[in-house]
Amino acid sequence: MPGTSTRNDQLLINALRCLSIDMVQAANSGHPGLPLGAAPMAYTVFARHLRFNPSRPDWFNRDRFILSPGHGSALLYSLLHLFGYDLPMSELKQFRQLGSKTPGHPEVGLTPGVECTTGPLGQGFATGVGMAIAERWFNNRYGNDLADYHIYGVVSDGDLMEGVAQEAASLAGHMGLGKIVYLYDSNDISLDGPCHKSYSEDTEAKFEAMNWDVHVVEDGNDVDAIDAAINAAKSNAVQPSLIIVKTEIGFGSPVAGSSKSHGAPLGADNVITTKKALGWESEEPFFVTEGFGDVAEEALKAGENLTNVWDEQFESLRSSNHVLWRELECIITGELPECWDAEINDLSWPDGSVATRDAGQAALNAVANKIPWLIGGGADLASSTKTIIKSSGDFDAESQADGRNIWFGVREHAMGAIVNGLALSGLRPFGSTFLVFSDYMRGAIRLAALTAIDSMFIFTHDSVFVGEDGPTHQPIEHISALRLIPNLLVYRPADALETAACYQDAIARGGASTMVLTRQGLPVLNEFAEKIREGVSHGGYVLSGVESPQVCLVATGSEVSLALKAQKQLEADGIKSSVISVPCRELFMGDCLPDGVPCVIIEAGVTQAWGGFGKGKTASVGIDRFGESGPGDEVYDHVNMTVDHVVEVAKSLL
Amino acid sequence: MPGTSTRNDQLLINALRCLSIDMVQAANSGHPGLPLGAAPMAYTVFARHLRFNPSRPDWFNRDRFILSPGHGSALLYSLLHLFGYDLPMSELKQFRQLGSKTPGHPEVGLTPGVECTTGPLGQGFATGVGMAIAERWFNNRYGNDLADYHIYGVVSDGDLMEGVAQEAASLAGHMGLGKIVYLYDSNDISLDGPCHKSYSEDTEAKFEAMNWDVHVVEDGNDVDAIDAAINAAKSNAVQPSLIIVKTEIGFGSPVAGSSKSHGAPLGADNVITTKKALGWESEEPFFVTEGFGDVAEEALKAGENLTNVWDEQFESLRSSNHVLWRELECIITGELPECWDAEINDLSWPDGSVATRDAGQAALNAVANKIPWLIGGGADLASSTKTIIKSSGDFDAESQADGRNIWFGVREHAMGAIVNGLALSGLRPFGSTFLVFSDYMRGAIRLAALTAIDSMFIFTHDSVFVGEDGPTHQPIEHISALRLIPNLLVYRPADALETAACYQDAIARGGASTMVLTRQGLPVLNEFAEKIREGVSHGGYVLSGVESPQVCLVATGSEVSLALKAQKQLEADGIKSSVISVPCRELFMGDCLPDGVPCVIIEAGVTQAWGGFGKGKTASVGIDRFGESGPGDEVYDHVNMTVDHVVEVAKSLL
Repeated sequence: MPGTSTRNDQLLINALRCLSIDMVQAANSGHPGLPLGAAPMAYTVFARHLRFNPSRPDWFNRDRFILSPGHGSALLYSLLHLFGYDLPMSELKQFRQLGSKTPGHPEVGLTPGVECTTGPLGQGFATGVGMAIAERWFNNRYGNDLADYHIYGVVSDGDLMEGVAQEAASLAGHMGLGKIVYLYDSNDISLDGPCHKSYSEDTEAKFEAMNWDVHVVEDGNDVDAIDAAINAAKSNAVQPSLIIVKTEIGFGSPVAGSSKSHGAPLGADNVITTKKALGWESEEPFFVTEGFGDVAEEALKAGENLTNVWDEQFESLRSSNHVLWRELECIITGELPECWDAEINDLSWPDGSVATRDAGQAALNAVANKIPWLIGGGADLASSTKTIIKSSGDFDAESQADGRNIWFGVREHAMGAIVNGLALSGLRPFGSTFLVFSDYMRGAIRLAALTAIDSMFIFTHDSVFVGEDGPTHQPIEHISALRLIPNLLVYRPADALETAACYQDAIARGGASTMVLTRQGLPVLNEFAEKIREGVSHGGYVLSGVESPQVCLVATGSEVSLALKAQKQLEADGIKSSVISVPCRELFMGDCLPDGVPCVIIEAGVTQAWGGFGKGKTASVGIDRFGESGPGDEVYDHVNMTVDHVVEVAKSLL
Repeated sequence: MPGTSTRNDQLLINALRCLSIDMVQAANSGHPGLPLGAAPMAYTVFARHLRFNPSRPDWFNRDRFILSPGHGSALLYSLLHLFGYDLPMSELKQFRQLGSKTPGHPEVGLTPGVECTTGPLGQGFATGVGMAIAERWFNNRYGNDLADYHIYGVVSDGDLMEGVAQEAASLAGHMGLGKIVYLYDSNDISLDGPCHKSYSEDTEAKFEAMNWDVHVVEDGNDVDAIDAAINAAKSNAVQPSLIIVKTEIGFGSPVAGSSKSHGAPLGADNVITTKKALGWESEEPFFVTEGFGDVAEEALKAGENLTNVWDEQFESLRSSNHVLWRELECIITGELPECWDAEINDLSWPDGSVATRDAGQAALNAVANKIPWLIGGGADLASSTKTIIKSSGDFDAESQADGRNIWFGVREHAMGAIVNGLALSGLRPFGSTFLVFSDYMRGAIRLAALTAIDSMFIFTHDSVFVGEDGPTHQPIEHISALRLIPNLLVYRPADALETAACYQDAIARGGASTMVLTRQGLPVLNEFAEKIREGVSHGGYVLSGVESPQVCLVATGSEVSLALKAQKQLEADGIKSSVISVPCRELFMGDCLPDGVPCVIIEAGVTQAWGGFGKGKTASVGIDRFGESGPGDEVYDHVNMTVDHVVEVAKSLL
């Protein structure tokens, strides 16, 4: 709220500090050092710059504030409380307790005003870059009146050491994302001790080399200097800004300037000593000073004005451009547009062989054509993962219109976090790379699942069938490893038809999902089209059934075709078998598995996690070793992914 | 071999180019673009600088050469062939075929002269930083005569975009690792197209800001300019060097300068056109020009001289300092020193409660005291993971003696790759962080497992018992996800005694391993000391057995104590049960599981991968959801990790 205040800034900053250390002390757990040091910069953002309405924390056009070092959560909760969000003192007193709205690290969706789940360092920094891409896209498409906001963040030494943040910084600078204003809480201390033990780069020069606008504030307690730097940063619309604010961790406390203040409560005595050093008027925990409540009132009032103006603008779009208005409404409410699946429903493939990455391209484009806010790209592999939206241009530094193809560069981890930032902004985003490189971005995938946002990760080249590129590029454990992440849907379609059905299911459900697709061609299962259409949303279904099967061949992805071949060979040998396709194990309830019938589970990857599958005796056909370099079909054979082996294992169960 | 040559450099460079494109063409798979562009710089390293003996590729004091963009492997194989390594033309002709020594991406251990498995971008860059740390440590401890070598690398646009490389670059600059000489194949092209679509930073300024010595060679075909830059880089002993070499991808081919030359064979016609453009004398595939064989001969002779001199030095150490000599011999042969386990064998703990991270500290120090080349550190969490070697100083920028505590900074992924570089150099390294952040470094963990090197990763804070830090910091899927990686041993000890036994087992076996340890205290199981001592190396064993149990309680780590409590309650209820501890599932053959007895498997993490465990009916007690913020014991209860629940599940199996 620029310029609204003649408040006693220092008093309120100290209020934030004292609340924060009281919270940590009451929980006997938490991180007092950051709130004590970074309170002035965060306060300055909230008091003088952030445009928000605390009674409408989800207002579309609000400025975002991200606390990337999420361990300083006490500061964020104190701020939200002070500035009128629905986070009463009773919640501050329940800091880090079960069932509270004030968990140890900020969790988006749980606490009003928290924009981003942070804690794993670097993620907040990189997610904010995604939010800034979203803002620019919205701004280009819906105009200044409806979409024009800043992404403020506090970032820490630890964030800046993380590769995910460095990747994101490089891309943000490349794109010239001027709406980013990050304040770097530069206190020279990390958990283990002084930063200079491991970190001594020239941050200013480094960020300038990445096309950031860098400012330095020498005194982290100087609100006016911070304010001036933020103003300068905001005035630069073509570069992201980093404001290096020199602070003292644990400011005011007896352990100021030491890593001892980082992650342990100060202790009751030191809390009191700190309050005295800050000139705080009371030793009473959770004491609230005079004028404190006025801040919330003011913020609510100012916020109301902001949202009223915006509501009018939005309403006027309704009459001037109903299509665009409805589009934005969908983005805000999380709805899909009418008939979003009209094209994907109509997809068809001639009999023959189609790689599921190619089918995925058709499916992705079919939904992208109907959902204008579906946006994404690849980590320098879009041409190979086949994830280019053909009807749209690029979103990049040169063409900053509302193009929807994002060039992430070879930056998988940042891509994951940026996709999360796009999702948190209301877009339907995707990011793609080879399956084996999902390892590089698990940190971001996990956060997508934890926060239950609509991030879609598309992974191709999904088995040893990758072939010549060899074991470094052949996923073995990755499909199973993704399935272990709670709340994540892992789709691995068997052919082109299943691919389209999987995309349709994933888009309709929303939430965090992954597509696991092949590089190699797979037979199109047109003869089973009806079953596929009905079956996929159940996660698994009888694809090719017989009455009273003696054995079930349960398969996913490319191995479904293998199972169908094995079924024929078994039939020739007089053995009745059904083939069950399981494109999404998380959705599969197992209903179609006949009781007491043994199952062979077939997947070109590690078998361990399939052990408990099924209702009766089971055996696995999979790959419990690293792959090898050679033509894909030869490697597949070499690791015993053959019809003969499936038949042999099936017979061993009878 | 500095200064040995009056060779026709251009002819030999073109020989490398033509061999490389022939290999790719013969395989009909591979990457011709990099070899064509980067051949001159790689040739210059081999011909004028690299100190090596092709007949002794494992010679301790050799210079290292890393091709970080491993997709350019054809160039590396051509070089190794040209310079006399045991890689005959027949292997070049088998490029990317099953069973060859010339796989799609370089694999250390498979091909003589390959120092590092590369392909996943950024890993080679970061692993080389580990090699440079090792070199400095060796140099400090064994002196210039025995350890004094450079780490040469070719790195690419893609490498420099990866976070893992940026993390490593930051640390290398911080440490002033002057032996690093990386040549940046700057061709402005990546897989999807021109780099400027996603990458436009000022690399020179950025690396200078990270304390690198940066040189620029404008013409990547100018061998003398490259040579001069390498000389300048080598003369700087206090900063790592990056030589930016401007090249043209696919040089000489009809698709030069285009991403089309990156990852697809040129085609037979274009191969011939390219050879003509390069002035190559023959269209014949795998044609070898005159003088080619002399290069190998010279290299073998020069190498022989180098190793002879070194052998004498090493032999003279034997008489002058037998202890140091024997130490270095162990490092070279991979042996453990005599009585390496004397201290760890003697560890004991009083009855009571000890966190396994604390027991791990004792175990790690007990082996570190006996293995002077055990070295490692934490990603800014060493004080919390308890992985400080107390008898040793720091290895850091300020104290560059042979200290063994490495401050990695908040750089998990680079830590993983650096640990791999240390292991590849002969050290016994470890790296530590919280278990949940193993996600950040899976790319490096996987390579450790794939290359079967002695990398140990220590992960603490291993369950929801982390408590207040909440779901972002509570591992759920991580233990199971690590177990899915082939060739990786995952140890999760139940108490202090098991912790020591696990460390002992892991060190004795070697190979890639992880320790999964608690933050919270666990009862010391002194009454089972004998069984623990005997059992751990089997991966699992009956910890607390009864005759003819009605049910087995199988548990790992902190849940073993829970199982013991449940056993007592079951006993009180008249039900006989055995408790089986499984500290390392990979090593467990299941022998001690009684036939037909149902099992309850108890682990504070996802249950999916345990489904197939055991011989009879099984049920799992685990956590198939994200955790919550609250005191650890409360969260543990909240997610139903309770004695009552275990008892209830056990009874349900009867």
